[in-house]
Amino acid sequence: MRIEILCTGNELLDGSVVDANAPYFCGRAFARGAVVSHRLTLPDDLSALVSAMRAISQRADFAVVSGGLGPTIDDLTLEAAAQAAGVPLVEDPALLARLRERFARRGIAFTENNGRQARIPVGGEAVVNRFGTAPMVVFRIDRAEFHFLPGVPREFRGLCDEEVMPRLERRLAATANRVHRASRVLKCIGIGESHLDDLVKDLPARHPKVQVGFRTHAPENHLKLLAEGETDAEAQARLAAAEAQARSLLGTRVFGADQEELPAAALGSLRAAGATLALAESCTAGLCASLLASVPGASDALVFSAVVYQDRAKSILLGLDPSMIEREGAVSARVTRALAEAAREKAGATFGAAVTGWAGPGGGTAQDPVGTVYLCLTDGRTAVEERHRFGFDRDRVRTFAAYQVLDLVRRRAAPGAP
Amino acid sequence: MRIEILCTGNELLDGSVVDANAPYFCGRAFARGAVVSHRLTLPDDLSALVSAMRAISQRADFAVVSGGLGPTIDDLTLEAAAQAAGVPLVEDPALLARLRERFARRGIAFTENNGRQARIPVGGEAVVNRFGTAPMVVFRIDRAEFHFLPGVPREFRGLCDEEVMPRLERRLAATANRVHRASRVLKCIGIGESHLDDLVKDLPARHPKVQVGFRTHAPENHLKLLAEGETDAEAQARLAAAEAQARSLLGTRVFGADQEELPAAALGSLRAAGATLALAESCTAGLCASLLASVPGASDALVFSAVVYQDRAKSILLGLDPSMIEREGAVSARVTRALAEAAREKAGATFGAAVTGWAGPGGGTAQDPVGTVYLCLTDGRTAVEERHRFGFDRDRVRTFAAYQVLDLVRRRAAPGAP
Repeated sequence: MRIEILCTGNELLDGSVVDANAPYFCGRAFARGAVVSHRLTLPDDLSALVSAMRAISQRADFAVVSGGLGPTIDDLTLEAAAQAAGVPLVEDPALLARLRERFARRGIAFTENNGRQARIPVGGEAVVNRFGTAPMVVFRIDRAEFHFLPGVPREFRGLCDEEVMPRLERRLAATANRVHRASRVLKCIGIGESHLDDLVKDLPARHPKVQVGFRTHAPENHLKLLAEGETDAEAQARLAAAEAQARSLLGTRVFGADQEELPAAALGSLRAAGATLALAESCTAGLCASLLASVPGASDALVFSAVVYQDRAKSILLGLDPSMIEREGAVSARVTRALAEAAREKAGATFGAAVTGWAGPGGGTAQDPVGTVYLCLTDGRTAVEERHRFGFDRDRVRTFAAYQVLDLVRRRAAPGAP
Repeated sequence: MRIEILCTGNELLDGSVVDANAPYFCGRAFARGAVVSHRLTLPDDLSALVSAMRAISQRADFAVVSGGLGPTIDDLTLEAAAQAAGVPLVEDPALLARLRERFARRGIAFTENNGRQARIPVGGEAVVNRFGTAPMVVFRIDRAEFHFLPGVPREFRGLCDEEVMPRLERRLAATANRVHRASRVLKCIGIGESHLDDLVKDLPARHPKVQVGFRTHAPENHLKLLAEGETDAEAQARLAAAEAQARSLLGTRVFGADQEELPAAALGSLRAAGATLALAESCTAGLCASLLASVPGASDALVFSAVVYQDRAKSILLGLDPSMIEREGAVSARVTRALAEAAREKAGATFGAAVTGWAGPGGGTAQDPVGTVYLCLTDGRTAVEERHRFGFDRDRVRTFAAYQVLDLVRRRAAPGAP
């Protein structure tokens, strides 16, 4: 079965918008074992749309079209579909009544323009869009079943999940020799791709029906497992076996799978241990706290973060001896440890963590050039100290440093951690 | 002149990567008055690539192809180009020598695979890529001049700016009836699109050759001006006139233009006034400080941010009276003002700013439901206090709150602000 997607809109071709709808649909389809083989983006140009739809109707079985369903004159998608099929547009009375009712409910005047959204190609089916105004339209042209969706990302995603995927699933179920796929992404941090590759090098031979891939989402490294089978159960079983082996090879390096994120994993370790955390951040300047606080309910575990950006702030907020900062340097193992200890004590927290570093472009010393970052995590008895070099880009240094702090918390705060 | 872009790679069709290369090229071209009319994304499939390149070679004048230039067997782009043109691939000795030298300089072994990157279609021209290993290749097939670029975003962007744009510029210069365009984006914050629209409603009539558009990059609202002219000077003059009028209508609501960002604008106000800032952040949890610190040299002006996430942190770090927090509530005008004043005093800073709020999903009260945010900025004499409602999404509430704080700093810290 051949699947294609067509995205429409001038804003996708003038650089002002990065299209996220196509990747969303492609990812959802891929997770079901279906690969999109052609992704086209066109401006709001009727003749270009008509000829693209004609071409798709000859070669694809299942097509998704995003955008161009609104009420304004540059919304041309259904007009193009009608022309491509050689049929007229007609007003759908039920659809018109639904639109009028929707506007009335919201107290918005219904203008002639809005009525345009009730016109669909003869033979098409309007599907209620509970995420917005314009309906989704399903319409067959020759070989291809077209699914027309609004381009508004929230509406596109909602309709993709609730309406398009069940339809795709039914088509796939009816396909002979259907390949079933099951996939998992295991997420690690702080190890390079070649190291990751080396750790799991025996996987492919032991699991021949599971593709192994790598991706770097700096600072994370992901291991992708894609299992195939003649049935869904077979694909799932193969995936489970490969995942179990990968997890045993990678150990605690894996912080999560698929949609799981590092901040939630770090917070999960703290919660599981019934522990609290206080932070002292210099070069990351609040990024660690901000990432942790992206998780609902983070105030369970996060007491505070002292963003001690200027040197004197380290003394003002956390009582560090200015002469010690002067002597050791604000970016140093000693100051970082003193900050972690002071944060923990002041907060009365289980753990204190601190990070200092040269984010650049200015700063740095001969021993500690730009990109050098010191971390410390202490529980009051033991302090874990790390020194890293994260390159020369300011954003990169700060992001890598913050992720490293969160990963240190995740690994060391977990109950039973060494 | 017809311009097209083709992006290749399985990862662009399985949902794992959102392609940013095409929008980058499209945006750069658009800023020069050139519109990309066809954007296609294909998997690493030789026959699909060959037929797409053949089609492009018949209808386009200028084409960019992203990806598939690496050393591995799924890098098929130049093989496809050679087949589309009906010529063989040959090894380019100068290119091979350059690759070997690059590897030797870095102390990396040069394998047979790497040699593949020195093979280009007969008649093609290899252009040195100073951002990475694979060269850019320029190769004409029938009507279209193809520009093959590596898909690695950093390399793509570098080569796009340094090599592709000058070539496009030369082609455009030779085009008869060329339309010259000049564009500007004026960025505002804290006013809705309809309000913005109303403020500038007289612009289109006064500047008929300047298109006026609006875009919301929440929490920012952008006004886009796109001027056309028969010469570059004419387009620039029309833009300048429209921009001057727009700026006078919008006043200090405009925080920047084009690539200018709010954190740099806020820091710019502080620097211009020779002022310093101390922050107390609750619901934003370090986001304000982190945004400010994204600007190099922010420690000039930012003394600290006390991320007082738990209630007791407000007392521990900034000495607030726990009974006052108990009485007023941690999310309240009174506590927010006390935090701003305490941050300013402790830091000995010119300004103190504080933010508290209910980010959700938990929390909130009958008077202050989830989404309510209090801000305060004080200079020790006058305190500006604001209360906002930012909806129900946790990320949205935190982001809007942080931007509002930065905008308050930008407006009130500027020399001569009321």
